[in-house]
Amino acid sequence: MNILLYLEYDGTAFHGYQRQPFVRTVQGELEAALFSLLGEEVTIHGSSRTDAGVHALAYPVSFQTASTIPPAKFALALNPHLPEDLKVLESMAVPEAFHARSSSRGKTYVYRILQRLQPSPLHRNQAYLVRRPLDIPAMEAAAERFLGTHDFSAFKSVGSTDPNPVKDMQGITITQEGDLVDIRITASGFLYNMARIMAGTLVDAGHHRITPEEITTLLKTGKRGKAMVLPPQGLYLEKVYYAPEDLSLD
Amino acid sequence: MNILLYLEYDGTAFHGYQRQPFVRTVQGELEAALFSLLGEEVTIHGSSRTDAGVHALAYPVSFQTASTIPPAKFALALNPHLPEDLKVLESMAVPEAFHARSSSRGKTYVYRILQRLQPSPLHRNQAYLVRRPLDIPAMEAAAERFLGTHDFSAFKSVGSTDPNPVKDMQGITITQEGDLVDIRITASGFLYNMARIMAGTLVDAGHHRITPEEITTLLKTGKRGKAMVLPPQGLYLEKVYYAPEDLSLD
Repeated sequence: MNILLYLEYDGTAFHGYQRQPFVRTVQGELEAALFSLLGEEVTIHGSSRTDAGVHALAYPVSFQTASTIPPAKFALALNPHLPEDLKVLESMAVPEAFHARSSSRGKTYVYRILQRLQPSPLHRNQAYLVRRPLDIPAMEAAAERFLGTHDFSAFKSVGSTDPNPVKDMQGITITQEGDLVDIRITASGFLYNMARIMAGTLVDAGHHRITPEEITTLLKTGKRGKAMVLPPQGLYLEKVYYAPEDLSLD
Repeated sequence: MNILLYLEYDGTAFHGYQRQPFVRTVQGELEAALFSLLGEEVTIHGSSRTDAGVHALAYPVSFQTASTIPPAKFALALNPHLPEDLKVLESMAVPEAFHARSSSRGKTYVYRILQRLQPSPLHRNQAYLVRRPLDIPAMEAAAERFLGTHDFSAFKSVGSTDPNPVKDMQGITITQEGDLVDIRITASGFLYNMARIMAGTLVDAGHHRITPEEITTLLKTGKRGKAMVLPPQGLYLEKVYYAPEDLSLD
């Protein structure tokens, strides 16, 4: 049976998603919980790597199991075996060919900024503090330049394993509520650190340190710009998109 | 010089506001930071006690100091001496007669509920999970019964030190955004655990376990009802009200 789980996690105390020896990872904790529930060594497939400190609101993983637990009951059955900072939101059976990573058609990441003068104890692990006021319309004008199909080589860190730097950027929205500013980026795929470098570029635009024209030039030349890789605690994987036919058992 | 500070804190790792030997408290950490900045033993006056795990969005404290630091600069000067879960948002000079607790005219507390089936890693220390759906209009109808001036003896825990159980309840609003439900309570004062017991009563109303009439009866008889003291992690001190003339130096 092929099972799809959606996970929420607080990335603060994880060394990212991917299993590594000697450190605490999402994959490692989930596989341990599955072993404790099923008595079965299960290898799970995550939808992407996420770095240490990055959060997920609905991170999909899939795995094969011989278990007879009803597919919809995995959330309830697994949660008591999982730590407080990692829980299953939903579970379901999917076709044998489904794979959380290779079936993905696109993803939405949110980068959350706290725009104020003093640091926030309540948001310290869940947003990035920007003290200087942001010009939101300038950020929106800059964001438009990313839309469409481009080679995003200028917006990745060294170490990207994705062989295809061409991505379809479907939407970027910037919403402000009180002193929180959310940058929501939806694309067919993301290169290593791409969401965090794009968010850094948009913060620069909000401070008038880069123009929309310069973003178009970066996309054309593929030359990495000056924008920071913003820190991980502001980043959330919000959604991974699958085609209905890839999920349907009928 | 009499200084007023507004604090934000994440109550998770504090044993409440009030200084106590051998445990970590907000007052203890703030007095240590003031000593480290000023080299002066300062006693601070908080606006109320808050329990372990309770948060504050703008908690006022006042203190006398011989320091010559410009009053508006205390936030910037103190924050490097404070831990990540406690920061100063704003600072100002106030008249000599001002006292964060005794000058208070009223307060607003927010109780935050997460309404969904599975626990949330990202909200685990900052909201209370309620699995059963809440009937919000029923909560609003119940909340109306609290409005006005009443003896709130039925809505306090043993150990209340406030000699006056009569409070003026000025407003209760319930707002829902996604799966978060915020109960916002504004009153002239709060007895021990009053906000958490009122929130528990409103959750019971949302589950049709108490009627508005029964709330009126509790207020009249002063007999403690069946509602839970909801856990501390959902509670936030949002605002303390002062009269403009008590804050004005002119």
